[in-house]
Amino acid sequence: MSATPSAADAYAPTDRTVPTRSRERASYDRELVHAILDADYLCHLGFVRDGAPVVLPTLYARVGERLYVHGSTGSRPLRGAGEDTGLPVCLTVTHLDGLVLARSAFHHTINYRSVVVHGVARQVTDPAERSAALDALVEHIVPGRVADSRPANAKELAATAVIALDLHEVSAKVRTGGPGDDPEDLALPHWTGVLPVTRAYGTPEPADDLDPSIAAPGYLTTR
Amino acid sequence: MSATPSAADAYAPTDRTVPTRSRERASYDRELVHAILDADYLCHLGFVRDGAPVVLPTLYARVGERLYVHGSTGSRPLRGAGEDTGLPVCLTVTHLDGLVLARSAFHHTINYRSVVVHGVARQVTDPAERSAALDALVEHIVPGRVADSRPANAKELAATAVIALDLHEVSAKVRTGGPGDDPEDLALPHWTGVLPVTRAYGTPEPADDLDPSIAAPGYLTTR
Repeated sequence: MSATPSAADAYAPTDRTVPTRSRERASYDRELVHAILDADYLCHLGFVRDGAPVVLPTLYARVGERLYVHGSTGSRPLRGAGEDTGLPVCLTVTHLDGLVLARSAFHHTINYRSVVVHGVARQVTDPAERSAALDALVEHIVPGRVADSRPANAKELAATAVIALDLHEVSAKVRTGGPGDDPEDLALPHWTGVLPVTRAYGTPEPADDLDPSIAAPGYLTTR
Repeated sequence: MSATPSAADAYAPTDRTVPTRSRERASYDRELVHAILDADYLCHLGFVRDGAPVVLPTLYARVGERLYVHGSTGSRPLRGAGEDTGLPVCLTVTHLDGLVLARSAFHHTINYRSVVVHGVARQVTDPAERSAALDALVEHIVPGRVADSRPANAKELAATAVIALDLHEVSAKVRTGGPGDDPEDLALPHWTGVLPVTRAYGTPEPADDLDPSIAAPGYLTTR
């Protein structure tokens, strides 16, 4: 929206996106936020119900500056998002990248990349946008799959709800690198370093009723 | 607390632990809840700040019917948990086990195991319990590590805060198995089945300043 490159390349920090600790790990860089969001598809969506917090795992996809979250029309957060005011939410995505083992128990930590999005979620009511959002969800989770599955029909689209959350109030937090032991601990005899952690995909398991002549597609076997 | 075996083996469902959809996937079985919690160490902790939801990734460990969550004394949720009333939270743990690819886009889903805990988190003020909780956190994340690292000293313990959340209002949700295509889609030419997903550990990466004669310990290399 702004003409200045710096504003276009970063989200504006707000009171609730500036962390109270480890501020040096926080970033508002748009490209970094997009990269972290695009590298996952499972988020934790928080909302308030009867004054108390609720956090549920949900699938999401990013399209430009908007996140789409999928769910049935009967689920709690989606009902709230259908009301006129929308639903205040906090959507968080966390990649665990490593266990960081210091010589001292105190300095043990993890390497991670996370994004926290604050905003008001709204139901997507436009049929064309909802259909496009569902395609984006399937394609984001399994690239190549939209062209290799039966598209949703009108009845299925009517039974599915999608909520949208715009990327305005957003921050990323990243920790990388090795342990940070205190100088007086460097001579201790304990191994120290990082145990890398990743998400791994196994061999595709065909459904019992799959025609055996249909081979697993390349977009799965090369993942 | 109850003398009846059925009550001892399960958490009592409440209004907010009975899901509005996919009720057949919900469970209150204590053993299942413990197994899901013990198989992970990264949770998403939700709380309410100025009326809006906040969801942050955090490390946790279970000790009996209590979860311990770690953080510095300056972090937002921990400050709230130090007040007399405690901090209402929702702590959610989700294992992603597989991407479920149906022939129809509509029936795509994921296999997962999740636990949602509602309750009031409180700061652990007893020094002995706090020290034990920190040991539990390190040992839960890297079994074998407490005996192979320098224990926290008094200054470090004072700078660390731990919050406790008791397991009273708890539910698990599990989806397993293959896709559930509609009968009229069974002859479609698309591959269908499950792509398994796991958390994988890589080769331990020694810190730059590690004495090269110190080998990576077995509790890391066999993980």
